Amino acid sequence: MVNSPPTSQSTNLPREFSFIRDHFGPLGGPAALGLRDDAAVFTPAEGRDLVVAVDTLVENVHFLPDDPPETIGRKLLRCNLSDLAAMGSKPEGWLLAFSRPAHITNDWTKRFSEGLHKDQETFGLSLMGGDTTSTSGPLVLSLTILGSVAHGQAIRRQGAKAGDGIWVTGTIGDGALGLQALQGTLEDPTGWLAEQYRLPRPRVGLPLFGLASAAMDVSDGLVQDCGHLARENGLHAVLYASTVPLSPAVQTAGSQWLPTCLTGGDDYEILMAVPPEHEAKLAASAMLDTPHGAVPVTRIGTFTNGPHTVTVLDDDGIPLTFPTGGWSHL
Amino acid sequence: MVNSPPTSQSTNLPREFSFIRDHFGPLGGPAALGLRDDAAVFTPAEGRDLVVAVDTLVENVHFLPDDPPETIGRKLLRCNLSDLAAMGSKPEGWLLAFSRPAHITNDWTKRFSEGLHKDQETFGLSLMGGDTTSTSGPLVLSLTILGSVAHGQAIRRQGAKAGDGIWVTGTIGDGALGLQALQGTLEDPTGWLAEQYRLPRPRVGLPLFGLASAAMDVSDGLVQDCGHLARENGLHAVLYASTVPLSPAVQTAGSQWLPTCLTGGDDYEILMAVPPEHEAKLAASAMLDTPHGAVPVTRIGTFTNGPHTVTVLDDDGIPLTFPTGGWSHL
Repeated sequence: MVNSPPTSQSTNLPREFSFIRDHFGPLGGPAALGLRDDAAVFTPAEGRDLVVAVDTLVENVHFLPDDPPETIGRKLLRCNLSDLAAMGSKPEGWLLAFSRPAHITNDWTKRFSEGLHKDQETFGLSLMGGDTTSTSGPLVLSLTILGSVAHGQAIRRQGAKAGDGIWVTGTIGDGALGLQALQGTLEDPTGWLAEQYRLPRPRVGLPLFGLASAAMDVSDGLVQDCGHLARENGLHAVLYASTVPLSPAVQTAGSQWLPTCLTGGDDYEILMAVPPEHEAKLAASAMLDTPHGAVPVTRIGTFTNGPHTVTVLDDDGIPLTFPTGGWSHL
Repeated sequence: MVNSPPTSQSTNLPREFSFIRDHFGPLGGPAALGLRDDAAVFTPAEGRDLVVAVDTLVENVHFLPDDPPETIGRKLLRCNLSDLAAMGSKPEGWLLAFSRPAHITNDWTKRFSEGLHKDQETFGLSLMGGDTTSTSGPLVLSLTILGSVAHGQAIRRQGAKAGDGIWVTGTIGDGALGLQALQGTLEDPTGWLAEQYRLPRPRVGLPLFGLASAAMDVSDGLVQDCGHLARENGLHAVLYASTVPLSPAVQTAGSQWLPTCLTGGDDYEILMAVPPEHEAKLAASAMLDTPHGAVPVTRIGTFTNGPHTVTVLDDDGIPLTFPTGGWSHL
């Protein structure tokens, strides 16, 4: 009889398998095959395209060791859900690559996976697979998300035309000011800002097809991301600063924080180009329905012909300048 | 006009985007949408299931800083391809999460992506997307692979029955002894062993459906992985040590290395359960055809009723014991 490999207490499973089964087993949907196969098997519904993205969070870069583990997992999943939402697609499943340093305890991982469990129920998807490795460095979490969309109906960054309105969901700047609040540079009496930073609300299920000519999610800062849309479409973007929707908490913080709001990132709202023929109806309701409730939408600017950059105008038509256009990951 | 974010030399792209475009842009297939959208869009062929897996390599755990970058990328892709091969599925695309420490230079990354470029052409798939982040720790590379298989034809680990033969592709132990050779504990005059460790040959395109009742790839050691199959199927596995196929280089190394070969891992061969009715034909040819050439297959044991473990017998029917059953990732 062959000696067993290193085992967990009560089974003859090697440690890695027991770790996966204990912490992530309950999250597995049908495609996961019990997390016991070499790969997951997912049958896309007929006539649906698959939409797939990956996002990584690194300890000390994207979160801190003493951040609550529940929200770290949920934020990671929500950032990915936001990518799906930007393409007008429906969540199906996710895979997790978990590179674990020695200081990440079982208790930490339990709370991390509990947060994910909660969110996958909210957003209607399930774990399909993953990989667990050890590392001598910080915790690295890479989440691959799979969604689906009716064939040919994925919304892309390309597709906007001069004259299209620039619209955004929700409010801008809450995440960026939430980070400031967590760093102690800003008062956050209601805790709203920190909450938005830790648990962004992905706009899953927005009915973008037939409405938006192009879309993306706002993750690196409104101005920088608007610049991406401008460049992708060979257009100039004009934004009107006073029309950018701000939450009560951001308004309370004061206008000196406006540059941070417009360039700070972590919004996870959806930025859309909307052709003029669809704007009147959108302006009338100022809302879009989703399976997770109605989402406010606001017109904040226009695409024009011109240099493939962004101009932000104040109420007097004077261009604003910012020390930085957004967040670069390297 | 808004100030630009930090840019690369000749464009107004932020650094991260220029890094991705320069190094990984040429690898993008149609699904990647130029690596410029929030997610990739892939249209599965009608009647095909999607097969998806993720694998991570961590610097200092799975490879060393002075390993050739070309082979690190290719090994990562090949490990994932091996997972697809075990399910009897066809490669379609891959996504890469690249967590980059400061010591990883552009030149390193260029060589890394060139290796991947070569292999994605060999194995007929293309890059669909990815994410690049910085890290203070070691380089962490997570690769998500997507494949497809005719609906319902994915081969699972479950499905074997008592009486099924245990078969394996190729040869066992080359990767494990290759690691020993690279660590200087074993002579490797032809370089064959190190080559197999660095560049395993995934058995992509094996015609497993209608042949194997269960399959998996051998990555953590033949004995441990055979134990997984035994456990998944509620069976006992009997392996005959002298029938395990060994390459000339492994045979030259000597029989004292047999335990390392059987438990060492890094084989990336396919372990199959084959029902008796399919064994005669398989034994006659001892080969399986794939789009990448014919692959030798060898019968190495039998599944029986009994404890859900593995027994390895020598030529006298005496059970062998090993100090460890295989490689655990934690």
